[in-house]
Amino acid sequence: MDALRFDLISLFPDFFASPLRSGLLGKALARGIAVVQVTNPRDFTTDRHHKVDDQPYGGGVGMVMKPEPIYAAVESLPQGARQQTILMTPQGRPMDQPLFRELASQCDQIVLICGHYEGVDERVRYLATREVSLGDFVLTGGEIPALALLNGVVRLLPGTVGKPDSLTAESFEGDLLEYPHYTRPAEFRGWPVPAVLRSGNHAEIARWRLAQQIERTQQRRPDLYRRWQSGE
Amino acid sequence: MDALRFDLISLFPDFFASPLRSGLLGKALARGIAVVQVTNPRDFTTDRHHKVDDQPYGGGVGMVMKPEPIYAAVESLPQGARQQTILMTPQGRPMDQPLFRELASQCDQIVLICGHYEGVDERVRYLATREVSLGDFVLTGGEIPALALLNGVVRLLPGTVGKPDSLTAESFEGDLLEYPHYTRPAEFRGWPVPAVLRSGNHAEIARWRLAQQIERTQQRRPDLYRRWQSGE
Repeated sequence: MDALRFDLISLFPDFFASPLRSGLLGKALARGIAVVQVTNPRDFTTDRHHKVDDQPYGGGVGMVMKPEPIYAAVESLPQGARQQTILMTPQGRPMDQPLFRELASQCDQIVLICGHYEGVDERVRYLATREVSLGDFVLTGGEIPALALLNGVVRLLPGTVGKPDSLTAESFEGDLLEYPHYTRPAEFRGWPVPAVLRSGNHAEIARWRLAQQIERTQQRRPDLYRRWQSGE
Repeated sequence: MDALRFDLISLFPDFFASPLRSGLLGKALARGIAVVQVTNPRDFTTDRHHKVDDQPYGGGVGMVMKPEPIYAAVESLPQGARQQTILMTPQGRPMDQPLFRELASQCDQIVLICGHYEGVDERVRYLATREVSLGDFVLTGGEIPALALLNGVVRLLPGTVGKPDSLTAESFEGDLLEYPHYTRPAEFRGWPVPAVLRSGNHAEIARWRLAQQIERTQQRRPDLYRRWQSGE
C-alpha cells in the first residue's frame, strides 16, 4: 500500500519544520509511513504584492483570507483516488478518535487547509469535503489543529506505534478514560503503588483497572460515562 | 507588568523550535509579551542510562514515565507567585476559551507537563494544580496540547492581536459560532458575496450576521446552541 499523503495548505510553512522531525511522528515520517508536503497559498498569488488577505465585506475588524490563492494551491496538488480536503475551522465538527480512525483507514490523501487572520472567505468551504475543529477555543491559526489531526491519524497507521495493543487499551477507544499507570519506585515520596498491582493476580488487576476506569470517567467526564452506559 | 512565563516540561524540547518562531505567536514572543522555556526531564535523571520511563506495575503494553525526573524538572524552576502547573492528559478537563481567559488574566507562570509513552506515573498528578485535555482523541504526546494552550493564552495577552475588538467578535466569545466572512472578489466562480454585505446598511448587516450565527450554531453545534439559549 502506498504511504498516506498529507498536504498542508498554510501561510506559515516554517511552522511545521521541527514538529514533523520530532518524536514518534518524526520517526514515522522518516520511515515513510506517511508523506507530508506543505503548500503556501502565497506562492499562488498573481498580484505584485502577493496579497493573500483583504478587507471583509460589510465591515468589521481584521482581514479575511482571499479564496483564489487557496483554490489555486489546492488545485495544484496531485489528486488521490480517496482524497479528503479538510478545512480547519472553529466552526467545524470537533475532532475525535472515530474521525482519526476513519481517515487513517479510508484515505490515500488528506489535504488540510489552515485558516488565519479573522477567518477565511466563505467560498473556501465549497472546496472542502469537511470542516473540522480542534475544540471550543480560538487559536491564531489552523496550523496547530492540522498538526493535531496529522499526529492522531499517523499514530494509527500500521508501523507507527510498536505494539498494536497499545492502540486498543487507551482513552477513547472504548469510551472510558484510561486506568492509572504506575511504574517504579514502589514508593515515591510516601505514595505507594496500589498493592493489587504488585499482587501478580491478573484477574484482580483487570478488575481493579476497569473499576478505576469507570469511577474516573464518572467523576471527570459524566458526558462520556452516559454514552458508555447507553452503549452508543 | 512582567511577561507571563511558560515552562514546558518535555522529553522533546526540539519539537517547539519552529512553532515558537512562527506567525503571530512568534511575533508576540519576539516582542517579549510572554517568555517560554523548555525543560527536559531527561536532564534530571540520576542513572547512567538517563532512564525516563519504565515497565508498568501490574503488566500491560508500553512504558510509563517515571515520577522522579518530572518532579526534579518542575522543582528546578523558579516559582511564580501566581503559578499553575498543568498536566496535559486525555483524562483532564477539555480545554476551552474560559480556561484560556482565566489563565491569561490570573497567572504569572504556567508550567505545562507533556506526557508520553503509554502514560505518566499516577503520582505526577499530585504535582499538578490541574489536568487539561486537548480533546477526545489520542496523540503521541502532550507537546501539541501544550502548544495549543500556549497559543490560545498568549493570543489573549494585551499586544498580541493588533485590535482588541478582534477578540470579542469571534467563535466561543458569546457561545455562538462566527458569521460567514467574505472578501473580494465580489463574485468568485459563480458564487457572489451576499447582497446585504454590499448594501452599506449597517443595521441590516448586523441583523444578517446575528441570524447567520444563530442558524449556523443551531445546525452545527446543537450543544452550544442549547447553552446559548439557556443563557448559561
